[in-house]
Amino acid sequence: MKSEIDFVNFLRKIKTFDKNIIKGIGDDCAIIRFNSKKNYVITSDTSLLGPHFTEDYTPEEIGHKVLATNLSDIASMGCVPLYALYDITIPKMSETWIKKFFIGTRKLLNHHKVSIIGGDTTKGPMSISITLIGVQKNGILTRSGAKIGEDIYVTGNIGNARAALILNKKTIGHKYFRKYLVKPTPRVGLGIELSKFASSCVDISDGLVKDLKSIAISSKKGFEVDIDSIPIDHNFNKYVRHQFKEECILGGGEDYELCFTADSKYSNKINNLSDKYKLRITKIGIIKKSKFSYLAENKKYIPKESGFDHFKSK
Amino acid sequence: MKSEIDFVNFLRKIKTFDKNIIKGIGDDCAIIRFNSKKNYVITSDTSLLGPHFTEDYTPEEIGHKVLATNLSDIASMGCVPLYALYDITIPKMSETWIKKFFIGTRKLLNHHKVSIIGGDTTKGPMSISITLIGVQKNGILTRSGAKIGEDIYVTGNIGNARAALILNKKTIGHKYFRKYLVKPTPRVGLGIELSKFASSCVDISDGLVKDLKSIAISSKKGFEVDIDSIPIDHNFNKYVRHQFKEECILGGGEDYELCFTADSKYSNKINNLSDKYKLRITKIGIIKKSKFSYLAENKKYIPKESGFDHFKSK
Repeated sequence: MKSEIDFVNFLRKIKTFDKNIIKGIGDDCAIIRFNSKKNYVITSDTSLLGPHFTEDYTPEEIGHKVLATNLSDIASMGCVPLYALYDITIPKMSETWIKKFFIGTRKLLNHHKVSIIGGDTTKGPMSISITLIGVQKNGILTRSGAKIGEDIYVTGNIGNARAALILNKKTIGHKYFRKYLVKPTPRVGLGIELSKFASSCVDISDGLVKDLKSIAISSKKGFEVDIDSIPIDHNFNKYVRHQFKEECILGGGEDYELCFTADSKYSNKINNLSDKYKLRITKIGIIKKSKFSYLAENKKYIPKESGFDHFKSK
Repeated sequence: MKSEIDFVNFLRKIKTFDKNIIKGIGDDCAIIRFNSKKNYVITSDTSLLGPHFTEDYTPEEIGHKVLATNLSDIASMGCVPLYALYDITIPKMSETWIKKFFIGTRKLLNHHKVSIIGGDTTKGPMSISITLIGVQKNGILTRSGAKIGEDIYVTGNIGNARAALILNKKTIGHKYFRKYLVKPTPRVGLGIELSKFASSCVDISDGLVKDLKSIAISSKKGFEVDIDSIPIDHNFNKYVRHQFKEECILGGGEDYELCFTADSKYSNKINNLSDKYKLRITKIGIIKKSKFSYLAENKKYIPKESGFDHFKSK
């Protein structure tokens, strides 16, 4: 691949899935015939060498992660992802790199039947911005629907991604947790199911404390979370020293699990979904009127962690 | 502005124009109720410090140019721009910089009634990716509709942006041409009018030779262009030495004028549009069966220029 045109032609060969793409890659704009009866969701995020992936990531791993983190935004809205636009900035046009990148990204695209419909490549410090468009199947989940007395749930285990980051790269512990950091699974199918009955939802990208707070603030409510009920990996305590536990599970982020709220009458339904998706779904607290409170060992607890912000150093 | 939340709140205050935005900035995704009877166009492009703007650009100028170049893609499709997503990477969160950037970008947003519906900010080497969504008003122009015997037109003057780049920054000539490089005018209104009758269209972003070639290749046709008929600024020959003329008008790019094809029966219509928009619209050649040929001083001519490619050095 020696030029932008080669790159465009390469992208063109990647399978598309939707008969409504009137024009995809190859012109200044893509043309989509949107269906009027449904609402569509659109998200756009940038991933950089440094904050989002590091030198030890293979191009395949980068290709997976940058899409997975965007798909996670569609999952948290309970929608079906449809179209993707990739804006890729790389220091030099390397056919090998690009192909490997798309091996990683294409598996996920195909799994979720997402079609690339456009994008751009530029020469510069490595940076990948992806725009994704999705459509509602049932309702659309937002952060703002939580009601007093509802249960707060999280999917999967929390803190694995941060555990990988804090453990020395030469340790067995790092090797164990690395897959969760590098290859997160966006909870797309589950998000679509949750959109039938959950009242609010967010994906855990910036840390549980920060992401749950965004539900509470958007919903104008408070919450009480029992830190001891937050689900951790069965190997977590084996590899991560106790002093880092709070940082991992409350401040961590990058787990790309879902945190959602639902009326307690749906607890059976949630158990069934947990069985269907072979995924833990754990109640960690309750929506309250206003305060943000935490319990640890049955006592009130004030966390030191506040979650990740790109423009604040920890 | 000290955090991402401040930034989001700042963006929220920027006016939106469309009653179909069910949810804009502030959640993981924006929700748009798309209208079914029309087709929509989507484009996404990255602008970087270096290839797209330089240290001497003010933040306002960057804010204008990054949006103008994206709007130009919507213009070349003959569509009405509607929604924008901004992915902004900057080395540090500077409220001053962000505000000035949005002063530049907001004027254009308001002029074209474009609503920001999402985006992302990240810390890193400066880079701005914009995704724009537009809707057809009439037909949608692409690069692929040109027919044998049709006329080839360009809007405005060609080569001004490159003239600014090659002239020494201390010269009067540079100062004269700089406004064309830094503040291009996307031909949105004219593009919408052209979509009623033009057969193909492209914006001149990578140089006339390359962009016109993309029409020819997409349309599976050839062309004959009379280089002497390519419109230049009335001060062009005063400031730009003859040896650089070809580089400016054929290889240049960044003029963001439109190059389109139309049946000769529309020549009066085109003259009327030229009057309406107070903008030169000049016939520069004819669509031919297959070859790409150029005339200069009534003789066959082979250009040295091939247009801009981000991954090829000149």
